[in-house]
Amino acid sequence: MSDQPAATNIVWHTHSVTRSDRERRFGPRGATLWFTGLSGSGKSTIANAVDAALWARGVRSYVLDGDNIRHGLNRDLGFSPEDRAENIRRIGEVAKLFTDAGIVNLTAFISPYRRDRDAARALQQPGDFIEIYVDCPLAVCEQRDVKGLYARARAGQIPEFTGISAPYEPPLRPEIVLRTAESSVEECVARVLTYLESNGYLDPPA
Amino acid sequence: MSDQPAATNIVWHTHSVTRSDRERRFGPRGATLWFTGLSGSGKSTIANAVDAALWARGVRSYVLDGDNIRHGLNRDLGFSPEDRAENIRRIGEVAKLFTDAGIVNLTAFISPYRRDRDAARALQQPGDFIEIYVDCPLAVCEQRDVKGLYARARAGQIPEFTGISAPYEPPLRPEIVLRTAESSVEECVARVLTYLESNGYLDPPA
Repeated sequence: MSDQPAATNIVWHTHSVTRSDRERRFGPRGATLWFTGLSGSGKSTIANAVDAALWARGVRSYVLDGDNIRHGLNRDLGFSPEDRAENIRRIGEVAKLFTDAGIVNLTAFISPYRRDRDAARALQQPGDFIEIYVDCPLAVCEQRDVKGLYARARAGQIPEFTGISAPYEPPLRPEIVLRTAESSVEECVARVLTYLESNGYLDPPA
Repeated sequence: MSDQPAATNIVWHTHSVTRSDRERRFGPRGATLWFTGLSGSGKSTIANAVDAALWARGVRSYVLDGDNIRHGLNRDLGFSPEDRAENIRRIGEVAKLFTDAGIVNLTAFISPYRRDRDAARALQQPGDFIEIYVDCPLAVCEQRDVKGLYARARAGQIPEFTGISAPYEPPLRPEIVLRTAESSVEECVARVLTYLESNGYLDPPA
């Protein structure tokens, strides 16, 4: 092992092509749509539906979710509080890269801890990070139980399962709240798109 | 800590918008241009110049380098062999995500170990990973010493510095070799663009 402190012998310099160069040429701007909520609340379904709606409009977007992150970048991490924090930290850093690259990126992770989400937000510029609280009562999520995880968690087969044996901390000031027990996927997608439109995220390059 | 093995209670499902959907609508295809070579060989300079050339042609691209990775995603890692391997593993995973998102991504890291680079290649589909060996004699790199790192390494202030006190393993079958002691930046950029053109990477959507 090196006795050298991490990441010291490197020097900052400016990218030849800047974010503003990319946005000017390609527009619209990059941004992170950070979906948070219980397992089964509908995060991934809605994120993918928003992704499809953006695709149909010709906006470059990309979904980061358990499928492409937990089996890839974060395959070394488990579900302890420490690993969950590191999971979210890395996702926040990757989201920042996609925003910088000019891509609307949608993250769909439970991300149960307020501190971890706030840290992901703090990595980006104001306006680049849109927190979307996918609000759905635990009883409804548990009834859906699409992946059978709640049943396994209740049976004690999954320790530290959010909502059952580990806490979920709802956002205090999310940009968007979607109540999926009361609204259809289409209604939720429309709400997200309206937010993006009315806040200038889908404007063509100036 | 959870006693649960990493990443087990997750289920694969298909993205609503697939890579081929994105390429069909937005084209050209995503791919990784993986630059490897000694410190000071010109990786970052050439990667940024290729990025600028792609930008000028209207191709979406993005550079991953020490600036945005070592200070961000990999800020927890040092320069030991283990940390270098994890550094490259994560970069390979992020590169794969960018390729999937339809972005030409350019990585500019020393990435001295063949095994680590081969592992990054193995994450992607054949043709998605283009290894570019930025070949420059150590003496030339050391003479340039843009960041003063070789002087510090010779003085023993940087342990495990590639080329001085840690090995560099040249690629055995790189797609492209650039000899930066003999060629200008412009010549190197032209070689990369010619490779991309003649292999269909810059073709518009079918």
